[in-house]
Parts: sequence; structure tokens; C-alpha cells
Amino acid sequence: MRTPPGISEVEFSTALQAFANVVGKEWVFTSDEDLHTYRDAYSPLRNEPDERVASAAVAPRSVEEVQEIVRIANRFSIPLYAISTGRNLGYGGSAPNYSGSVVVDLKRMNRVIEVNDSNHYAIVEPGVSYFDLYNYCREKKLKVWLDVPDPGWGSLVGNALDHGVGHTASRFRNHFDAHCGMEVVLPSGELLRTGMGAMPKSQTWAQYKLGLGPVVDGLFSQSNMGIVTKMGFWLMPEPEAFLQGKVMVRRYDDLHDLVEVLKYVENMAIAPGAPEMASPLLGAGGDTKTLVDIFLNGPPQLDRNHSELIAAAELGYSRKLEQYGLDNNIPYWSFHVSFYGPRKVVEAQWEAVQDIMTERVSDAIFQAHDVVTDRDEAVRKAEVYAQNMGVPNLEFFALGTRGGGLPPTRGHLFFSPVIPQSAEGILEANRVFNKAVNDIPLLQQVPMFNLRPFSLPTAFYERCFLLVLGFPVLDDPAINKATVAAFRELIRIGAEHGWGEYRTSPIFQDQVMQTYSFNDNALLRFHETIKDALDPNGILSPGRYGIWPQNLRGTKP
Amino acid sequence: MRTPPGISEVEFSTALQAFANVVGKEWVFTSDEDLHTYRDAYSPLRNEPDERVASAAVAPRSVEEVQEIVRIANRFSIPLYAISTGRNLGYGGSAPNYSGSVVVDLKRMNRVIEVNDSNHYAIVEPGVSYFDLYNYCREKKLKVWLDVPDPGWGSLVGNALDHGVGHTASRFRNHFDAHCGMEVVLPSGELLRTGMGAMPKSQTWAQYKLGLGPVVDGLFSQSNMGIVTKMGFWLMPEPEAFLQGKVMVRRYDDLHDLVEVLKYVENMAIAPGAPEMASPLLGAGGDTKTLVDIFLNGPPQLDRNHSELIAAAELGYSRKLEQYGLDNNIPYWSFHVSFYGPRKVVEAQWEAVQDIMTERVSDAIFQAHDVVTDRDEAVRKAEVYAQNMGVPNLEFFALGTRGGGLPPTRGHLFFSPVIPQSAEGILEANRVFNKAVNDIPLLQQVPMFNLRPFSLPTAFYERCFLLVLGFPVLDDPAINKATVAAFRELIRIGAEHGWGEYRTSPIFQDQVMQTYSFNDNALLRFHETIKDALDPNGILSPGRYGIWPQNLRGTKP
Repeated sequence: MRTPPGISEVEFSTALQAFANVVGKEWVFTSDEDLHTYRDAYSPLRNEPDERVASAAVAPRSVEEVQEIVRIANRFSIPLYAISTGRNLGYGGSAPNYSGSVVVDLKRMNRVIEVNDSNHYAIVEPGVSYFDLYNYCREKKLKVWLDVPDPGWGSLVGNALDHGVGHTASRFRNHFDAHCGMEVVLPSGELLRTGMGAMPKSQTWAQYKLGLGPVVDGLFSQSNMGIVTKMGFWLMPEPEAFLQGKVMVRRYDDLHDLVEVLKYVENMAIAPGAPEMASPLLGAGGDTKTLVDIFLNGPPQLDRNHSELIAAAELGYSRKLEQYGLDNNIPYWSFHVSFYGPRKVVEAQWEAVQDIMTERVSDAIFQAHDVVTDRDEAVRKAEVYAQNMGVPNLEFFALGTRGGGLPPTRGHLFFSPVIPQSAEGILEANRVFNKAVNDIPLLQQVPMFNLRPFSLPTAFYERCFLLVLGFPVLDDPAINKATVAAFRELIRIGAEHGWGEYRTSPIFQDQVMQTYSFNDNALLRFHETIKDALDPNGILSPGRYGIWPQNLRGTKP
Repeated sequence: MRTPPGISEVEFSTALQAFANVVGKEWVFTSDEDLHTYRDAYSPLRNEPDERVASAAVAPRSVEEVQEIVRIANRFSIPLYAISTGRNLGYGGSAPNYSGSVVVDLKRMNRVIEVNDSNHYAIVEPGVSYFDLYNYCREKKLKVWLDVPDPGWGSLVGNALDHGVGHTASRFRNHFDAHCGMEVVLPSGELLRTGMGAMPKSQTWAQYKLGLGPVVDGLFSQSNMGIVTKMGFWLMPEPEAFLQGKVMVRRYDDLHDLVEVLKYVENMAIAPGAPEMASPLLGAGGDTKTLVDIFLNGPPQLDRNHSELIAAAELGYSRKLEQYGLDNNIPYWSFHVSFYGPRKVVEAQWEAVQDIMTERVSDAIFQAHDVVTDRDEAVRKAEVYAQNMGVPNLEFFALGTRGGGLPPTRGHLFFSPVIPQSAEGILEANRVFNKAVNDIPLLQQVPMFNLRPFSLPTAFYERCFLLVLGFPVLDDPAINKATVAAFRELIRIGAEHGWGEYRTSPIFQDQVMQTYSFNDNALLRFHETIKDALDPNGILSPGRYGIWPQNLRGTKP
């Protein structure tokens, strides 16, 4: 029998019995077979001694049961680890930060409390997945669109609390910002409602965000200050039409103008959908066919002596490539934009984007899909990424199974720092990370997606860029170990330049939180002060995002 | 010499000397004449024994000085009360919640740290007013528009922390939500930076909101958990064109369709500017000429026996009025919408709004100003409320000086609950508050703006309605006393129906916070737990938004 650290088998059995009395015996899991499902399928530490694993799991069905579980955990000093659906693969899945924790699995709390298609919001429990809510809205013919992340099986609540993002209009893509109202079980077992939820009989819980007094919702995201049991989300009204266009420029030096236009049209709210940057010429940023490969006749990472290639790899610039692109009408840089609304509005917005781009780069190229008024048909035709229209699927998991000439992977890790939203920001990040790969032998030993020859950032979050570099997790423990070391090196190098990650896997959370180090880590110390006040026994998700309770602070794994 | 409660004159003198050693003698204020300026000019308790007044004020010039002041306050147990510019008249001005506090006046910290018109943000200190930043951007010809509240002399930081709102696009109107990044002096004197500000060398402090780990910014709004010394704000790119239109419907029963369209076009982001509702027929909601007055020949509040009028007052409906409106082409209900962006986009958006409205109410009426491409000229012509175009002024102070047949006032109080965003929400709130006025003699004794004959909500905050009822503050202490009692009655009645205020004056903060009472006031107790952890000596702004430190919790005024 596994037990939490410092808890005897007898004590733990008593605690498990107490959990069973609350949720029923069949919803307390302790067998290896059951606990297997709570392991992080993507962990690079899989089967290693330091893989982070649960000692048990318990699946409550109601808020009252969650409260009881938390009270029992306080009584027996049992560390808990709360998950919604545990589907944030690449960022830890359902495995705890602190080995031996009991996973509180909220999958059975999967009620859609309300969807309102006049005020365009939903209130859901943590077990509700994007698929669930999508299907619910379809069945009831509700005139709202969701904003969904790449894979659709995750929880709306879990994704928002983890600072996940989607693909539709900017006011909905930032899932945490698009929330309105929360219900939370505190580490004491007390039940809290935020915003207008604190006002009995209020009908505006999901209408007005700020409530009265301090806005405490943020404390419960990327943290361990409470277990969120309900959450409201603002939704997009079903638009009359959807349009997606592509803006392309021909020359390396056009990158600056392209990024300035991307920012202007996003911040002016002319082009609300997530702009997706790519380089048709370099093959970077989502274009699956790498022209560098064709042009230089070989996967770039294998041909380190070709000077043109090294130039392309380090600066994203090759005179020969640029000329090849100009001769063959292959643009250097591009971004997609998506528009939602009445047909005449989306058409005017797309025209305006073209005007604005052309004013800066007179030979810019444009291309658009037909205006979509039948979403189902558009999904079937698959001309547009379904998530841009708020339709969930699992196609994202094709990633890593047949990409980049690498062997199929068991999973992936994402290194994803926030970089300045400018052309110079993109170039500088590429220079720095490419130099690191050149200079640091460790970084040459491990496979990496998306860096060579050039990496373009994602613009999922409005007003900033994330440079997402993927590392495959393989079945080779030695490579995985090197990958972890290389990842840690990139965290360090990024932080040296002021580039901090927006989200990371539990094994890196301590290190990344440490890089947010202004004034001797004042922010982390602030989190710790609040943690100690709210959770004096340190029972809730110890270590999450680097926040350890007082009793474990000196002994972090 | 005034002193804080429980502090001897000798102790206080020593503390004041310590403050003077930090900021210079000339920036510590103790004379009656100086302290007069820190009184709440709009207080209904003016000159009464329970008027809340400061014992002194101190005006630091730098973050380091603020830190030193906080450390001294801890040493001498001096209660502080931090203000930015103290201009939130109607919501307390610069007077403290706790009489005898020392006001920390941040007006000298008025540096514009950065305005970026490529990424469209500003970072400012608390002493920077809307006028300051507007003038700064004008002088430097920066291509950004601000979102400004009604009067422009207040602080961006103070307004956002107080949950103030403006008039332009929804993503900027909610000033707190439009912020990105904070610097805060904690009650311990420690300096904290949130978001990407916690990452040394980061250039993305005002680009990415969430940073890593829990999002703590909300704790510092409407609260007393820290003194904010810098704050980033997202700005609108200067639009090519501005357009404002008015949507009008003719019949009482059209209210439902009007509100549904208002919500749809706002949530679809077709009409981003603050929609302003009015009733041209009833004269309610911003139309200065009250048709009820003309039609019924007398100010409605003075003629309580006319049955048509009582019907109009209680339900907003009068058959005779409606017929009069239809005969004379005066619409029953209307709202304004504002559009920002390229000319072809704003024109398409306005057309789309008209299409959507006409589809629901075929005889709806529309009216639009010319498209504005020269903002200065449009302000000069004064056809549009300047704040809709982000231009600050002080014209709002005309309010109460010559309105509604009342004598000129010394100030006003706003009762402003959040009500459901629906036609039924509007009608129900009017029914309930009108019944209260009929039933409760106290409510008939005090002057009140905007209730009779019918009150329309503001939609400053996207996705909800605020029903703002103004009470004039006069020079008559007896009326002011009755006004305070009547205000308290409305708070109670509102809360009974689930309508909680979004913001209130210090004298009502305890009562209003108590109405957010879910689970035995779990939210307030949560605030208190955090307050005690961050401010064990209870020195910072005791009582703000009902949050009293441990040492004063039993003895609140």
C-alpha cells in the first residue's frame, strides 16, 4: 500500500475509510491498476524513482462531498491534489506535484448548471469537458459558440485555472479572463462564492465579474488555495458568419510591418480571432512542408555545415531562400486572421485588414476561404481548423506521432516563454535560443520541435507572444533525462533575457516560479503568506506552481 | 492636534517627524487648512460628529518613500489611508474610512513611465490623471486613445482600483480588467510586482496579464491589502473613424427586443462602445427634457395623485403616453452605440446593428451622426459626448447643479446595484424601488435623481446593468441625515432581491459588504483572513470595503 509521506498505513487506512464513508467505497481508488490512470502519461520521468505519483484517488459527486474530503484531509494531515479532468497533458496531467498525495478527481461533478443564450454565458462544474458543453449546446440548440483549446476532452474549469487558451475571439480565448464567478471549497472546507455569487438570490453571477471588494478569483488559478467547484464563462453569441483570411508578405524584412499590422488589427478589434503566424518559405510555424528541406535537400538539423542553412537557422534569413520565394511566389511570412459576426461586418473587417497591410507593404498577398455560414459543413470540408470555429476535437494528438522525421513519441513537453510582441522580440528569441543550441552540447543531444530553422511565436494570448518549443517525450529514459536537463537550461536562458514561461509541468514549477524573482522572490513569498493563512495544515496540492505549505517548505522534492 | 485613535500627541508627533524625515517637512500636512482639502466634499455627514476625517496627510514622491512611510506606520501603529488623487467624489473622495487615519496622498507620484503606441499600452504612477495622460499622448503625438470616466481629473490607477468605468469599447471600459501589471507596496513595506513585472528584465509587464502562478492583482482593488505604485493599462489604437448611432423603438413592449439586441451586438462585439439606454418618451435615462413633465404638466414627483402618472412611475408604462409618442413620432425606448475603427468597418457595423434590430422590430427608427475622422473638430461641435471618444473633461459636474427642478446641490451619492441584464430585470427593479418609495415614508422625504417616472440602467460594464440612482447632498443636515437613512433602506431592499452594489461610499461599505452574505459572509471572512496575514498590525486603510484589521474588528464605527 502506498501512503503519503509520513503517514502510517494504519492512519492512511483510517483516512481512506473516512473518504469512503463520504463518497462510497467504489469511488476511492487505491489499486495499482486504478492509480495507473492518474499517472502523467507524458511524464519524462515515467517509471523513474522521482516520477510523481498519487497514493490514492477519491472522486466526489457533490460540493458537500468535496468539503467533507477536505475536512478529513485536515484531520489526518493527508495531502490532496485536486484535478478537474486531469487532461492537461504536457503540463502534468492528473499526477500530483507532491508524490503520495491523494488525487481529488472531480470528473463526476459534471453538471452543466446553466447555459444562457440571451446573456451568452455558461456555469459549469469542473467535470464538464468542452465536448460535454458543446454537445449540450447542440442538443438544446442554444445559439452560442464555445472557445475550445486544441484538444477538446479537457475541463473548462481546469483549463481556465491552468491559464489555457483557445482560438476564437480574443475576449474568449483567454479562458481565465473570460470567466465570471466562482464557487470554491477552501482548504478549511468552507464554501466561498466570488463576485455576485456572494449575494444570495443574485441572478448576475455570470454577468458581472468584480462583485464588491477585493477580486479574489485569481488566487485560485495556477495555485493551491482552493478547489473550484463551479465557474461561469462568457460565451460568444452564435455569429451569422465566419471568415478566415491569410495575410502574406514576401521579404524577410517585411516581418516588422507584418507584426505591426497583426498588433494593430488585434488591438483595434478588427480581427478578433487568434492570429497564427507562419513562414511558408521556411516552413516554420504550422506549415507542415518545410521548404528548407526541399531547397537544401535534407532535414536542417542534420546538415550543420551548410552556411546558408546556418544563416537561416540562426536568423531565419537566407538571401537564396528569399530569392527562391520571390521567384516562385512563396511568401516569407504570413498570419491567419478569423472574423466572427454578420456577413457584411466580417467582409468589411477582412477588407480593412487588407487595406492596412497594403498601406505598409504594397505587394502583400491575401487569400481567404469562402465566408462560412454553415459551420457543420465547414467542419466537414476541413478547410478551416475546427477550433477556430469553436468546435472541439482530438486531432491535435496527431502532433508528435508523425512530425519532423522523428520517431513516434509517447508525449511532449512545451517550453513556452512570454516574449515581447514585436518583430525584434521574435528575432532576438530565435538568435538567443539558436545560439544556445549551437553552444550547449546538451541541447544538441535532445530532439526538439519547432526551433530550427526558425521559430515563430503563437499569439493565442492577445497582446503578447508565446514562443512554444516542444520536446518529444520518448520511451528512452536516457534521452528523457537529457530532455529534462535541456528544458531546465532553456528556462534559465529565457529568464536571463526576461522571458518567463506562462505555464509549465509540475517538475519545472519550482524552477520557473523562482525565475519570477523580482525583489528576492517577493511574489512567491506573497503566495506563501497567503497559502499559510488559508491552508495552515498544508493539505491542498502542496507544491503546485512552486507554492509549498509551511510544513514542507524546506523539503521540496 | 488631531491624533489617530489611541495614539498620544507625543507618539503622533514622533511619527510625524519620522514621516517628515522621509518626505520633507513641507509634504506632511497637519493644519486644519491643509486637512480641509482631504475632507470628502460630498459627504452627507459634513460637519457632523461622525464625518470621517484624517489626522494628517503625507505626500511621498517615490516608491521608496512610500515603503518608508509604511514601515514607520507599523512601528508607531499609525493607521494610513492611501489615495491616488482622491477624486472619486460620490464614493468618498480623499477622506478615510477610519477617522484619524493619516492620508497617504500619492499625487506627487505622477510619472508616466511609458506609453507604447505600437503595443498600445501605458504604465503610470497613481498621481497621473486622465488629463495628464491625455495631454502627454497629445504632445507626443502618440496614436492611442484613452478610455476616460465622466470627470477627467481622477487617477487612472485610483479609478481602476475603485472599479471605475468609462465610455469607449468594452475591452477598455472596465478599467480594472483593462489593466496589465502592477507594482504594490505591501503593508509590511515590501515591494511586489505582479504578472511579468515579477520577471527581472521582462519587457512584457504590460503585455501579458497573468504571469505565473496565482493572479493576485484583484486583491488590491476595492481593498486595503497594499498601496499600488505603478499600473499598466491597455489602450485602444487611434481609430481611423468613429461613428455613433441611436437605435429607437416605439412601443412599451419593444423594450424586450431592444435589450436583446443591445446584448447581442455588444457580446458579438459589433457595437463595442458603451450602449446608453434612454426613454425619449418618459424622459428617463439621460434625456434632459422630460416629456412626462410636458404631457402631465408638472414635475412627476410633485403630482402623486394622477393615476396615469402613477402607472408610468411604477411600470414605466402609460397607454396615453405611448399613443402620444406614436402620434408624434417620439420613441418609447432607445440606446446609443459607438463604433471605432476603419470607416468601412464602423459603417458595416452600424448597418448590421440596424439589420438586427429591424429583424426583431420592423418599425424601429435609427439615427446616426456623421462619421468622425477628426476628433478635435467633433469635440468642438459637441454633437457627441466627448468621453465616447476618449476625451476627458469636467462637464459632468454640471450634474446636480441645475437638474430636475431641485435646488443646486453640494454633491451627490450614487446608489448603484447590479441588476440582471434583461428587460424583465429593468422592469422588476423599477417596480420594487417605486413600490418602496410609495410604501416607505422616509423615501418620500428625500430628493432623489432618476427614479420617477422610470429609471433605465447604465450599461457601462459589459454584460450587466447597473441601476444608478443619485441622491443629492444638500447643505441641510436634516435632509442629508434622512438621505443616508433612505440610502441604507435601498441597500437593504436591493439585497433582498439579489441586487448588490458594485461600489459605494465609505459610510456604506460595511453595510453593503454585509449584503454579500453567502455562507455566513464567507467572502468577507476570507478577506479578513488575508488581511490579517498581510497586515498584522492593521495599519493600512482600516475598514476599506468593510475589511477591518483584527485589532479593530470588534469596534468598527
